Amino acid sequence: MAYLQSMPKSETIKLREKHIGAACQLFFRSSPLKIVRGIAQFMYDESGERYLDCINNVAHVGHCHPHVVEAGRNQMSLISTNNRYLHDELVILAKRLVRTMPGPLSVCFFVNSGSEANDLALRLARIHTKRKDVITLDHAYHGHLTSMIEVSPYKLNLPGGPEKPEWVHVAPVPDVYRGKYTYPKDSKSEEELGKMYADEVGKLCRLAESNGRGVCAFIAESLQSCGGQIIPPHGYLSNTYKHVREAGGVCIADEVQVGFGRVGTHMWAFETQDVVPDIVTVGKPMGNGHPVAAVITTPEIAKSFADTGVEYFNTYGGNPVSCAIANAVLDVIEEERLMERAFRVGNHLLARCESLKHRHRLVGDVRGRGLFVGVELVTDKEKRTPATAEAKHVINRMREEKILISRDGPDSNVLKFKPPMVFSTQDADRLVDTLDRVLAELDGTRISNMTLEVRVTPLDDTSDKDVLRSNAQQAMKAI
Amino acid sequence: MAYLQSMPKSETIKLREKHIGAACQLFFRSSPLKIVRGIAQFMYDESGERYLDCINNVAHVGHCHPHVVEAGRNQMSLISTNNRYLHDELVILAKRLVRTMPGPLSVCFFVNSGSEANDLALRLARIHTKRKDVITLDHAYHGHLTSMIEVSPYKLNLPGGPEKPEWVHVAPVPDVYRGKYTYPKDSKSEEELGKMYADEVGKLCRLAESNGRGVCAFIAESLQSCGGQIIPPHGYLSNTYKHVREAGGVCIADEVQVGFGRVGTHMWAFETQDVVPDIVTVGKPMGNGHPVAAVITTPEIAKSFADTGVEYFNTYGGNPVSCAIANAVLDVIEEERLMERAFRVGNHLLARCESLKHRHRLVGDVRGRGLFVGVELVTDKEKRTPATAEAKHVINRMREEKILISRDGPDSNVLKFKPPMVFSTQDADRLVDTLDRVLAELDGTRISNMTLEVRVTPLDDTSDKDVLRSNAQQAMKAI
Repeated sequence: MAYLQSMPKSETIKLREKHIGAACQLFFRSSPLKIVRGIAQFMYDESGERYLDCINNVAHVGHCHPHVVEAGRNQMSLISTNNRYLHDELVILAKRLVRTMPGPLSVCFFVNSGSEANDLALRLARIHTKRKDVITLDHAYHGHLTSMIEVSPYKLNLPGGPEKPEWVHVAPVPDVYRGKYTYPKDSKSEEELGKMYADEVGKLCRLAESNGRGVCAFIAESLQSCGGQIIPPHGYLSNTYKHVREAGGVCIADEVQVGFGRVGTHMWAFETQDVVPDIVTVGKPMGNGHPVAAVITTPEIAKSFADTGVEYFNTYGGNPVSCAIANAVLDVIEEERLMERAFRVGNHLLARCESLKHRHRLVGDVRGRGLFVGVELVTDKEKRTPATAEAKHVINRMREEKILISRDGPDSNVLKFKPPMVFSTQDADRLVDTLDRVLAELDGTRISNMTLEVRVTPLDDTSDKDVLRSNAQQAMKAI
Repeated sequence: MAYLQSMPKSETIKLREKHIGAACQLFFRSSPLKIVRGIAQFMYDESGERYLDCINNVAHVGHCHPHVVEAGRNQMSLISTNNRYLHDELVILAKRLVRTMPGPLSVCFFVNSGSEANDLALRLARIHTKRKDVITLDHAYHGHLTSMIEVSPYKLNLPGGPEKPEWVHVAPVPDVYRGKYTYPKDSKSEEELGKMYADEVGKLCRLAESNGRGVCAFIAESLQSCGGQIIPPHGYLSNTYKHVREAGGVCIADEVQVGFGRVGTHMWAFETQDVVPDIVTVGKPMGNGHPVAAVITTPEIAKSFADTGVEYFNTYGGNPVSCAIANAVLDVIEEERLMERAFRVGNHLLARCESLKHRHRLVGDVRGRGLFVGVELVTDKEKRTPATAEAKHVINRMREEKILISRDGPDSNVLKFKPPMVFSTQDADRLVDTLDRVLAELDGTRISNMTLEVRVTPLDDTSDKDVLRSNAQQAMKAI
């Protein structure tokens, strides 16, 4: 069934090229998708073609969940104004959010995006500690704002990216597969690896102290997503937080991508590491697509902010519609027991992906928590050489199979799964079965590069070149 | 008629105190309003009491406009995903927005708030000019983000506010009533005053050049709102832009508060000054309460950004729901001819306010464009001494009369009117008639302080003290 469009796709593309900044990039650039409909874990293009959505963590409780749509519609027709007036939806949301957090985290600030939340978190940390130096993880991404790019090596590391400010200190990613300390090379004990990585943050704390300024804050996603779906070793965050606090800094947990039950065992990913942050930022899944986010902190830090006497006013932040929608998302998470589902389906997905590791030459590592899963592709399992071009090829092939996945990590070689939480075991099976098939196609490419060349010809132009270049290089080595 | 509440007001207040950061301040702090319903230019509290809303410029086409609510509801139930996929609503909105702007402004970036828009504008200017120095107006406010507070003297000037970075240069506000150059003291020609103020920006351009860095951008609201409803003298922006461009900088027009037809004669306030900015930011009214904002710039500046190779991704920015809502707001502005209405009703309001000037000792200046009006209260018309306490008293008295107005400006003595654009001449009459009465009460206070003391006793505690202190001081002087 084709859907009603305002204009043919070619016209949409033409207008987009003319009127939307080219820095806003399309997914599948040479042949982008026009998505006109979403239901639960599925998205539909203009021709009615259905895609299994394995990447849209924003559509947390499923695309267009009727309870959320209804809540938005109701509140939109009643009132939407700023939080200089009292409103029940605002305080109910605050109370419910706080109830999911450990005790000291009891004061909320509502904003419109994860970027705004992280910006405010850093501002709170600065005001509270009266310091500026920030420790961030390599390859971390905390948002698109000027203040966030400064602490996002994901952007700073790019060739055209801005320069790293000298008050930003970059700690190594606690990646035990391809990071500074790996398993089993540097240690067979997860705890020890956790300590080794935490000690790196400790060193940076002392560096910040030695420059006479001291550390203001440590900011990190509880599980690093853009960095490549990283699951830090046990004890990493607890030891890191200890170092930071001993140095007088505060600890910020960025839960924008990984919060709201995605990890399956807990509502917040920091809980899997047994820590209590000083400031938590939440966003993306919070409004199931509606722009709403929040900062949750301790009464002490909130008081430091209020004590400046400077008002914090965010025009749309905490407006009744945003709050009603966020409350509805919490309703669905509870009523449909989505956290338990993320645990059950996530474990199934993880186990099935694990089996791919033994069957395919490209699958180097499989890791995850709940419905946050990464499959790292390598061209050499021993050397753990990133299979960047192959990962791009897989994404494109999966799209042909009507399954949307993406890739990330500093070498863009980690397949990333973070589907809406209504994802089912059947969906997981379809995802893994298809991936199995696509990887099998690639298993033969070392032997027959020519076969692959023919195979990928109809695909994305750029993809072709990358894969062909990589294959050519391998062939050269073989010769 | 009382409205259904989730909890009594006292409980809402208790929860708010416990769970919402105290830096988020309530309007009428000692006796805040609980607003549960909005229709057109009216807001209703929990007891069903109706207030005439003269300040909510966000509810541009009227609170809960059915066409906007419907557009939001429809799109929410179809799809809301990020702009890495094609969507018609996005490109239609871009095309429509661009059509309202002068030629060179043809490329859009969609974001979630005016703050995000201004942050991106500054980032674009920096990338394009490869410079950092920014010229901003005194008392300007451009947003709540770290990067925006740096260029917002409105916050920097506060006792507890952060320090001004040395790359920020503050130009005097082109306020011909109480600014650096005033009418008629410094000149009787508006054009000449415009030039004098513009020359101040020229001086700062040369200062920025002399430090070897040069000027990156000049950022200003086309009409300054938080600064005190300032209408710059004719020729101000054109001469200012000339200075900035000669120095190699770009000109950013912040239309977040004053755009979308509010000024009555034009869609954008910069048009009243006959200039074409290099970058325009729009926000607040754009979604009639829904978090959506945008940056519109030239193809050259957008290209400089794209050429860095760094992707700009804003999770919710330009999502189909935000765009559908913004398109619906544009529909209503057009179909209900709200710009013309702003012109007609605004002129009526302005003329009626003007008449107050001659009748009340406190009314020093009346100024405005369309439905953007300021009434500056002074205790001494010759010296133009700000009547801060009196302005606060007026706000509180008007609230008793069920009319919501606010005050602004560096001395918080400017009564601010920026109602939803559906405001009628009858509403304007009610506003001015009531204000007339409230000002008349105050006219007598120089003679009889005791009368006033009895009169204001039941009001806001803080207000009492301020007014009493001011009265006491006047009485002392009289003795």
